[in-house]
Amino acid sequence: MSTSANTPPPCITLLTDFGTQDSYVGILKGVIAGICPQAVVIDLTHEIPPQDIAAARFNLLMAYRYFPAHTIHLVVVDPGVGSARRAIALETPLGRFVAPDNGVLSGVLADFRPEEMAGVSLDRPEWWRTDAPSATFHGRDIFAPGAAHWATGVPLQQLGSAVAIADFTPFPLKPYTRTAAEIQGSIQYGDRFGNLITTIPGTAITHRTQSVWIGDRAIPCHRTYGDVLPGQPLALIGSHGWLEIAVNQGSAREQLNLGVGDEVWVRE
Amino acid sequence: MSTSANTPPPCITLLTDFGTQDSYVGILKGVIAGICPQAVVIDLTHEIPPQDIAAARFNLLMAYRYFPAHTIHLVVVDPGVGSARRAIALETPLGRFVAPDNGVLSGVLADFRPEEMAGVSLDRPEWWRTDAPSATFHGRDIFAPGAAHWATGVPLQQLGSAVAIADFTPFPLKPYTRTAAEIQGSIQYGDRFGNLITTIPGTAITHRTQSVWIGDRAIPCHRTYGDVLPGQPLALIGSHGWLEIAVNQGSAREQLNLGVGDEVWVRE
Amino acid sequence: MSTSANTPPPCITLLTDFGTQDSYVGILKGVIAGICPQAVVIDLTHEIPPQDIAAARFNLLMAYRYFPAHTIHLVVVDPGVGSARRAIALETPLGRFVAPDNGVLSGVLADFRPEEMAGVSLDRPEWWRTDAPSATFHGRDIFAPGAAHWATGVPLQQLGSAVAIADFTPFPLKPYTRTAAEIQGSIQYGDRFGNLITTIPGTAITHRTQSVWIGDRAIPCHRTYGDVLPGQPLALIGSHGWLEIAVNQGSAREQLNLGVGDEVWVRE
Repeated sequence: MSTSANTPPPCITLLTDFGTQDSYVGILKGVIAGICPQAVVIDLTHEIPPQDIAAARFNLLMAYRYFPAHTIHLVVVDPGVGSARRAIALETPLGRFVAPDNGVLSGVLADFRPEEMAGVSLDRPEWWRTDAPSATFHGRDIFAPGAAHWATGVPLQQLGSAVAIADFTPFPLKPYTRTAAEIQGSIQYGDRFGNLITTIPGTAITHRTQSVWIGDRAIPCHRTYGDVLPGQPLALIGSHGWLEIAVNQGSAREQLNLGVGDEVWVRE
Repeated sequence: MSTSANTPPPCITLLTDFGTQDSYVGILKGVIAGICPQAVVIDLTHEIPPQDIAAARFNLLMAYRYFPAHTIHLVVVDPGVGSARRAIALETPLGRFVAPDNGVLSGVLADFRPEEMAGVSLDRPEWWRTDAPSATFHGRDIFAPGAAHWATGVPLQQLGSAVAIADFTPFPLKPYTRTAAEIQGSIQYGDRFGNLITTIPGTAITHRTQSVWIGDRAIPCHRTYGDVLPGQPLALIGSHGWLEIAVNQGSAREQLNLGVGDEVWVRE
Repeated sequence: MSTSANTPPPCITLLTDFGTQDSYVGILKGVIAGICPQAVVIDLTHEIPPQDIAAARFNLLMAYRYFPAHTIHLVVVDPGVGSARRAIALETPLGRFVAPDNGVLSGVLADFRPEEMAGVSLDRPEWWRTDAPSATFHGRDIFAPGAAHWATGVPLQQLGSAVAIADFTPFPLKPYTRTAAEIQGSIQYGDRFGNLITTIPGTAITHRTQSVWIGDRAIPCHRTYGDVLPGQPLALIGSHGWLEIAVNQGSAREQLNLGVGDEVWVRE
C-alpha cells in the first residue's frame, strides 16, 4: 500500500512493559516496518511495571483520545503469554486497539456503547509473523504483525473471528460510589511526579467541594499546583480529567505515603 | 498541507521534564499527529530533572545547531504552568523554537543578533487545542498545538502577538570572566557519564593552557579521554564546544565530588 | 533524493550507550535528518552500559533479522573513540551496518559466509559532517553522517576503502562446547527482566533435555514461563533462539545470583 500525498500516514502507538534497556521494543518496530513501512510509530511508554495491567490500562485510557481516530494503539502487557488468553483487536469511534484480552482495554470499552464497537480474535496464522509463534514473545509474532496488517488496510473482519463486546475480559477496578453525603473512590495510578490519580472523575466535583479526605486528613481542593505553597498538598482536577492528589513541587506519593488502591473521600 | 516528494518533511523536536514512565510525551505526539501528521518528531530528552530550566537550556543549546534550520524545537519545562508566564515562539536563522518564556531559550537568544530573530506570544486560542486549556498541561493544550500549526505552514506572525526580543525572560547564568592572568567560570551541566561541562567556551583555551584549577587541585588539559589512564581526571574541549572536566572511563561528578555551580579557573 | 510513493522509506536503527538523559541521541537524529530527511529512524536501545561491547553485540544480534534487509543498523558503542580504531560499514544479505571496528559486529559476521558480505572503512572526509571531527563524538561527526549518506543511496564502495571481511576485529566470546555427555556454555546477557541468556543455541537442545546445570544446581527445562509456579526457576528456549535461564514472574539474575560469564551445562 502507498500513501498518497493527501492521506495522513497510518499511525501506531506502542504501550508495553518491555522497558528500554533491551532491543525488544526495537524488534516490534522492525516487524511493523517490514509489513507497513509507511506507518508512523509513536511510543506511549515502555516503562509499565512488568505485567501491571492496571498501569497499562490507565496510561492507555489517559492518552488515546488525543490521537487521530484512525490510530492503532498496540498494547503488549501480557502476563498470560503462552496461555490460552486471546489476542484481540477492537475498533471504536475514537481509536483502534490491539492487545491481549486481559482487561487492559476495559477503560476504553467503558467509553462507548457496545453497538459502536467491533472486536475480533487474532486467531488467523496468515496474519502472524510465523506459523509457529514463540511461546514467550507474542508481541513480536502476533500482536505487532496484526496491528501492522490492520494499518495497511486489511479490514478488521479479515483479521480474525468475531468476538462479542460483552465477551471481552473485564478488569477488577472498583468503581467510585456516591451517596448524598460523600463520594468514595480510590487511587488508581501514581505518575513519575508522585501525583496520585483517583478513580473519581472531575465531573463529580462541584464548586462547593472544599476538601478531599484520606483517613482523617483533609486535603484542600484548588485549581492548580501553584495555588498552594511549595511542599504543600492539594487536590485538583488533573489534566487527564480525574481528581488528583498532588504536592506542589513535590511528590504526594512519598510525602503522604499513599499508593494504588488507597481510599479517598470527597465531602462538600 | 501535503508534502511533495522533494520537500523535506517538517521536523519537530521535543525536550521536556515529563520522564518516560507515563504516556504524557505520547500525548504531545498524538496532538501533533492530529494537526501535522507528516511531521517527523524527534526526542531530544524527556529526562530533564523536574522543572530544571538550567538543564533544559543547556541540552537545547548543545543540540539545536545539528538540526535542519527549519526544525521546530518544542521545549516544555514549565514550572510556571497555570501562572501568567507567556508561551512563546521564536524564529532564528538556525532553528525555530516554542517554549514557556522562563529563560530556557536564553542560550539560543545569545547566539544571534536581535534583528536576526522574531518572537510572538502564543496568545490566540484559535491555535490552541481547546478554548479552555488545562491549568496544568499547557504542553498538550497550547505548546504542542502551536508547534504543530507552525509546522503546517502557519506564519509566525499569525500565531500570536509580537514580542520584542529584548523582552524575553533571561536566565541567571553567571557568565565566565577573563583577566590577564586567568579565566574564571563554573560548571553548568553534568551529563549521564558524569562529565562536567563548564561555562567556558573552548575558544577561550589556547595551546598554552596546561591545567584547569578547581580550588587548589590542578586538572591537566588533554585532547581526548584516552590521553590519560583509566580513572584519571582530565580537562578537554568537549564535543559540544565547552571546556569539560572528565575522568577517563569514569565519572568526574562522583570522583571529584563536583556539581552545577562549582567554580573552575583556567591559568596558563 | 526523494521517495516515490511505492518505495519503502530508508530505515536506520540506532544502538548506543549514550543513555537518554542528555540530548546526544537527539543530535545523531538531527544530523541524519539534515542528510536523509526521509529516513525512518528507530531506536534499538540507548541503555547499553557505557562501553559494554558485549551487551551491544548481543542486542544487535537479537534484533537485526526482524528488520527489512535494506535497514542500516548504526551502532555507537565506542570505547576507542579518538584512537586509531576504524569506523566501518558492512553489507550483508539481511541488513546493513555502521559501527566502530571493535567486535560489536562479530555476531552478525558469524551469520553469513564471507563472500556474501562486503565492508569498507569510513575513511573519506567528504562523507563526514566536518573535515575536523571531534576527538570524542565520532557518532555525530562520522558514523551518523556515513549511515545517512548510505541511506540516501550512495554506494557502499564510495563510502570508503574496502576492508576484507577477515580483517574485521573479532570479539572474545567463548563459544559453547559439546561432548557426547554434555554441552557447556555461559551466560552472555541479562535482560531487564533478569532473564539470563546463554551462548547455547536452542537448536542444541532436544526433547530429551530435562535440566540445565549451574554448578550443582539443576534447573528444569520447560516451554514457557507459566509452566512453573511463580517464583520458580526454569530453563527455556527464549524468543531470541538461545537457551535462557528465567524465573516465572521474577528475576533469575537476582534470585540465582548469576551474571554474564557464569557457566552452565546441559546434560540429558
